[in-house]
Amino acid sequence: MKILGFTLWAIFLFTGTAFGASAPISEATEECISCHASVSPGIVAGWKKSRHAVITPTEALKEPQLERRVSAEKVPAELAETSVGCAECHTMNPENHKDTFEHEGYRVHVVVTPEDCRVCHPTEAKQYAQNLMSHAYGNLKNNPVYHNLADSVNGIQSFEDMKTTLRPPDAETNFDSCYYCHGTAVEVKGMRTRETVMGKMEFPVLSGWPNQGVGRLNPDGSMGSCTACHTRHQFSIEMARKPYTCSQCHKGPDVPAYKVYEVSKHGNIYSSLGKEWDYTAVPWTVGKDFTAPTCATCHVSLIVNEEGEVVAERTHRMNDRLPWRIMGLIYAHPHPKSPDTTIIKNKAGLPLPTELTGEPVVEYLIDAKEQERRRQRLHKVCLSCHSYEWVEGHWARFENTIKTTNEMTLTATKIMLTAWEKGVAKGLAQNDSIFNEAFEKKWVEQWLFFANSTRFASAMGGADYGVFADGRWYLSKNIQEIADWLELKLKGMEKKKKQ
Amino acid sequence: MKILGFTLWAIFLFTGTAFGASAPISEATEECISCHASVSPGIVAGWKKSRHAVITPTEALKEPQLERRVSAEKVPAELAETSVGCAECHTMNPENHKDTFEHEGYRVHVVVTPEDCRVCHPTEAKQYAQNLMSHAYGNLKNNPVYHNLADSVNGIQSFEDMKTTLRPPDAETNFDSCYYCHGTAVEVKGMRTRETVMGKMEFPVLSGWPNQGVGRLNPDGSMGSCTACHTRHQFSIEMARKPYTCSQCHKGPDVPAYKVYEVSKHGNIYSSLGKEWDYTAVPWTVGKDFTAPTCATCHVSLIVNEEGEVVAERTHRMNDRLPWRIMGLIYAHPHPKSPDTTIIKNKAGLPLPTELTGEPVVEYLIDAKEQERRRQRLHKVCLSCHSYEWVEGHWARFENTIKTTNEMTLTATKIMLTAWEKGVAKGLAQNDSIFNEAFEKKWVEQWLFFANSTRFASAMGGADYGVFADGRWYLSKNIQEIADWLELKLKGMEKKKKQ
Amino acid sequence: MKILGFTLWAIFLFTGTAFGASAPISEATEECISCHASVSPGIVAGWKKSRHAVITPTEALKEPQLERRVSAEKVPAELAETSVGCAECHTMNPENHKDTFEHEGYRVHVVVTPEDCRVCHPTEAKQYAQNLMSHAYGNLKNNPVYHNLADSVNGIQSFEDMKTTLRPPDAETNFDSCYYCHGTAVEVKGMRTRETVMGKMEFPVLSGWPNQGVGRLNPDGSMGSCTACHTRHQFSIEMARKPYTCSQCHKGPDVPAYKVYEVSKHGNIYSSLGKEWDYTAVPWTVGKDFTAPTCATCHVSLIVNEEGEVVAERTHRMNDRLPWRIMGLIYAHPHPKSPDTTIIKNKAGLPLPTELTGEPVVEYLIDAKEQERRRQRLHKVCLSCHSYEWVEGHWARFENTIKTTNEMTLTATKIMLTAWEKGVAKGLAQNDSIFNEAFEKKWVEQWLFFANSTRFASAMGGADYGVFADGRWYLSKNIQEIADWLELKLKGMEKKKKQ
Repeated sequence: MKILGFTLWAIFLFTGTAFGASAPISEATEECISCHASVSPGIVAGWKKSRHAVITPTEALKEPQLERRVSAEKVPAELAETSVGCAECHTMNPENHKDTFEHEGYRVHVVVTPEDCRVCHPTEAKQYAQNLMSHAYGNLKNNPVYHNLADSVNGIQSFEDMKTTLRPPDAETNFDSCYYCHGTAVEVKGMRTRETVMGKMEFPVLSGWPNQGVGRLNPDGSMGSCTACHTRHQFSIEMARKPYTCSQCHKGPDVPAYKVYEVSKHGNIYSSLGKEWDYTAVPWTVGKDFTAPTCATCHVSLIVNEEGEVVAERTHRMNDRLPWRIMGLIYAHPHPKSPDTTIIKNKAGLPLPTELTGEPVVEYLIDAKEQERRRQRLHKVCLSCHSYEWVEGHWARFENTIKTTNEMTLTATKIMLTAWEKGVAKGLAQNDSIFNEAFEKKWVEQWLFFANSTRFASAMGGADYGVFADGRWYLSKNIQEIADWLELKLKGMEKKKKQ
Repeated sequence: MKILGFTLWAIFLFTGTAFGASAPISEATEECISCHASVSPGIVAGWKKSRHAVITPTEALKEPQLERRVSAEKVPAELAETSVGCAECHTMNPENHKDTFEHEGYRVHVVVTPEDCRVCHPTEAKQYAQNLMSHAYGNLKNNPVYHNLADSVNGIQSFEDMKTTLRPPDAETNFDSCYYCHGTAVEVKGMRTRETVMGKMEFPVLSGWPNQGVGRLNPDGSMGSCTACHTRHQFSIEMARKPYTCSQCHKGPDVPAYKVYEVSKHGNIYSSLGKEWDYTAVPWTVGKDFTAPTCATCHVSLIVNEEGEVVAERTHRMNDRLPWRIMGLIYAHPHPKSPDTTIIKNKAGLPLPTELTGEPVVEYLIDAKEQERRRQRLHKVCLSCHSYEWVEGHWARFENTIKTTNEMTLTATKIMLTAWEKGVAKGLAQNDSIFNEAFEKKWVEQWLFFANSTRFASAMGGADYGVFADGRWYLSKNIQEIADWLELKLKGMEKKKKQ
Repeated sequence: MKILGFTLWAIFLFTGTAFGASAPISEATEECISCHASVSPGIVAGWKKSRHAVITPTEALKEPQLERRVSAEKVPAELAETSVGCAECHTMNPENHKDTFEHEGYRVHVVVTPEDCRVCHPTEAKQYAQNLMSHAYGNLKNNPVYHNLADSVNGIQSFEDMKTTLRPPDAETNFDSCYYCHGTAVEVKGMRTRETVMGKMEFPVLSGWPNQGVGRLNPDGSMGSCTACHTRHQFSIEMARKPYTCSQCHKGPDVPAYKVYEVSKHGNIYSSLGKEWDYTAVPWTVGKDFTAPTCATCHVSLIVNEEGEVVAERTHRMNDRLPWRIMGLIYAHPHPKSPDTTIIKNKAGLPLPTELTGEPVVEYLIDAKEQERRRQRLHKVCLSCHSYEWVEGHWARFENTIKTTNEMTLTATKIMLTAWEKGVAKGLAQNDSIFNEAFEKKWVEQWLFFANSTRFASAMGGADYGVFADGRWYLSKNIQEIADWLELKLKGMEKKKKQ
């Protein structure tokens, strides 16, 4: 098998190097490849095409500041002079990893985490830890309102004696549903031995595995998964910058960012002409490398102009350029200060950033000054290709849409509050879930689907998407249907009383 | 700053010219670029990649007739010998432009219009003025029925005293919704001075701005926006010919042309093999330049065969090859004669091309002969790749689908008319909006979403799209739901009477 | 015209050959091209780019076994030494083809069928005949339950005397709807003479034409259409391997495989990086030719690793690697043994692979051992890029989702059975269609749209798609709406009795 490995290795040396470069491989990684090139050829082939495979950290650190892809000032000596291969990541910090196991003489772990990546990419790891996404697991799991919403979606319903009942979802269903994107808690549940092509071997048994969700709880105690966007094992910056990566989690009616982008002028330019652009340049030069933004351009990447002036700093705290949070909650509101949103309590005692009637819970949210700072950061990107008046006009319209969609949600909420009050549905006052009746689910759609879709379309120039595809049409129709339903139910109750 | 401009300029001269050519730049445009290369680098970079940047009108006019991209026979001398740059378009016809303002010694206007483009492209401007799209603003704004539909979608609803009420939408909401695609009225509301990187400057204040809608009312009195499809500032024919451009406005459930194309055989060939095609050749040669059509192939472009025979003349009146109008109205019908559809009145006095019960209002619509002429124009494109029998069979099926979808809409309409008559809903006879009740919105979906989606799928080979994705499944289910609703409401009324 | 043909021909010889090769053309095909290059230039141009045009069967047979694209051991002498051109296919087996007609001295047929392709591709034809798809016409047409569902979707509804009635759909509507993908019965209805550019000519009149559905009934008695996926006339393996081909029929809510793929990690890698891959290599080497699967990789293609070991054999029986059938039927179940599913009868006498309450009709379905064989075939593909634990975890989750989605369908079914029993709807016991009421259509959506979408998302890592886009959200909401409806209807009945 070694011979086989070395044969492949020779082929690799001959064919490798998408970047026209090469880097020495550590002995440990060489040993990994000697078997895995045959056992898991797709993984090795992917890595071969990666920048990790062809440049050493020492070389990477020589790049001028703006062009650097590693934010560490220094990299540990034992990592500095070889490529970043299998062993470098999968044997990093072994003592911190509960998933570390003995494997062919090495202490290997399964789950590479932001803490492992942090060795070379500390700034990104730090920023991401401040990113709402890194807390996506806990923010869902430990918020009773959200958790109840998730249960109402994922739970198993039965029908007996003319009634439906809800059984809470099993763990696998949760992993397959909300936590697929939010991230699972990956925990070591023991070890087991199994037959492999190399003979009997022992491996850790993990719960919540596989998962690459953005807020994954890792066996080393860290939160998040860099591979959610920087897909293994090519870790291509091109891929992270292309909109398909974001679409993995941001395409459904709850967060149709990608769908809106697709029909926007930006998305059209990208789809039509983007094949000529340079997606790997660091920094990323507006006009030269691309002539319309992808998601990463506006929200993440280090952008410069042709004179090398920084238009936007790189950030992995995705709301650094966003004054408003327009999705996932009942009303659009200023972004929360902390990425841990479980600390929020509104006046009614609910863990929500607004009251049920829309007023923001200001102490937990960024203030107007911080909103303005974030707005200006994004404006600066817009201004690369648009006049001041264009940008201003666009934003005035968007912020008006935030206001009106919040109003339309409030109207739906008032109907629901009335339904609870009149007793035709059971809600907070009755200590009942606010998500478990057909009527309540229609209310959820008002904000989770229709109001937010309208806002996304407004924010990104989605036009028709915000009207007829889950937008204003439904925002308006839904209110009338909910009101219709309430009237019908109330009539039914009145008659009952008369009888 | 000038120095900076000139530095950039040198880079441009060195790197420019996507077409391997170059053209002298006018002094005025050079002055624009000297600042804007830095102030708005994306715009300048886009333009640099354009054909406008690398060929003079004089050179462009030397092309053989079929290969010409300018339809003017002659271009004013002062424009003839330089590239078509910033100043050429943004200082054209200054006296006609209410948005003209003094800017660094030039009389510049913000909004470049079809009248400006007409100088070099008169045939296209003339055809587009006859295109329904150029009238999209007025056709919506000045048609009371449409306008009422738009209000019912965009208006803000409140809930008080157990009733919903509708407040008409504000202007910004309209601009962000229907008028985003239809076009806004861009009007000069005054001037204002603001700080810029170049010091204090004065700019016009525009309402309805930004906008690139197809029927935009411009400050020079013209209608339309060429950049709706020929995106600034690259004005790439490749982009206009790719289907993503059409998808900006033609993807939602109200007009799912792009979605149908995507799953059609044509769209599949384009997506799979289109990367090898030539999207810039003029004329566009079937078989040689492409082996399956995009939207532009069938509906817009000048198509020739390999012998140079014209298969289809270029047209910017998009319905030149379309006998039927299958979207946006209650029933499919022959295309209207005039692009201004506000002149239409049916027997009931409504500004609609058919009666509520489907009969076409023939005096305003093209007759069977003109329908046949248009059908034959499109057939000729089909016949480039399909046998006569194939084309004939396809069209017979499509025209049968027009008939049956109209029938299914009539059935839904009859239920609605009954509801009005029996008093369970309020419609025309009660002087009430026909769009403001949940029930009426379901009727709208019958034709605006389901019947037209079915027709698009039939027209373009969308197959499954026309069955389960907003097609026949919903067309059929919706009737049963409306009928169910009517029965329920009528029972409620009967009981009331008995009581 | 001949002269013209030969001119074109010279151009062809000069420009042809996408593969850098060329092959002699038969005299017959040369004669076809001499006119059709001008009459149908797109067809000839497409073919010119095909492998059929540039390699003779004799050359093709010289390839090493794994690299061969023809499965015949020998090809008839008269076909062996020329390219596979127009005449080779369209004059094959003339006596078997009822659509054969005299055309310019040849006995030509319109519809090329799997029987014609079988001459060079016998293994593929044989496998495809065992593929469920090849029976798609009969499986729909001759299954009374399905047929009734189709009628309820495609039929024309009228509204008279406060009632809706259903008229069965006409043939053209069926061809344009379900049978577009399933395939039509193409039958010769006579001959007719028409004017052509070459003078009067006679052609067969075909019903059900055009069609390229997967289960088409052909005029030579064969079933299926190779061009459903191997699109005429380029027959590009690249195209068949790209996911857009599958999306033609597998994108709607009834079978959203493509939509799920798009937002999966696999689809993201393909969209972002797939432009660099080799889609024409045979065999297809994982890692080298591609680093993430398309539909064909997992389900159809011959896959090898870099050492040339076979990871998966090529198959045109698409369920060879699939233990479960997750779409199109009320409950997910083991795949049927026979591609002809009209032979199945459940205990209630219905032609369904499960009872209405979900129990599989085991005698017609593959057993656990065969399921395991198929699971292992697919696992082997997964293992090329994923660890054993990853694959195991993924499958455990998927098979759990099969179980829970079946449960959620059973719950909806129980409500429907109750409705029939209580008389608020009419079903089997009343000898009424089980698809013709609004309520029943909601039940259909539970399994045809929501349960299967959830399963597809689970199978292919579609994450959010399986939650909010036609997935668990609707699966859960729909039950509550159906239960609500039943309660409402029952109350109405009770009151009636009291009165």
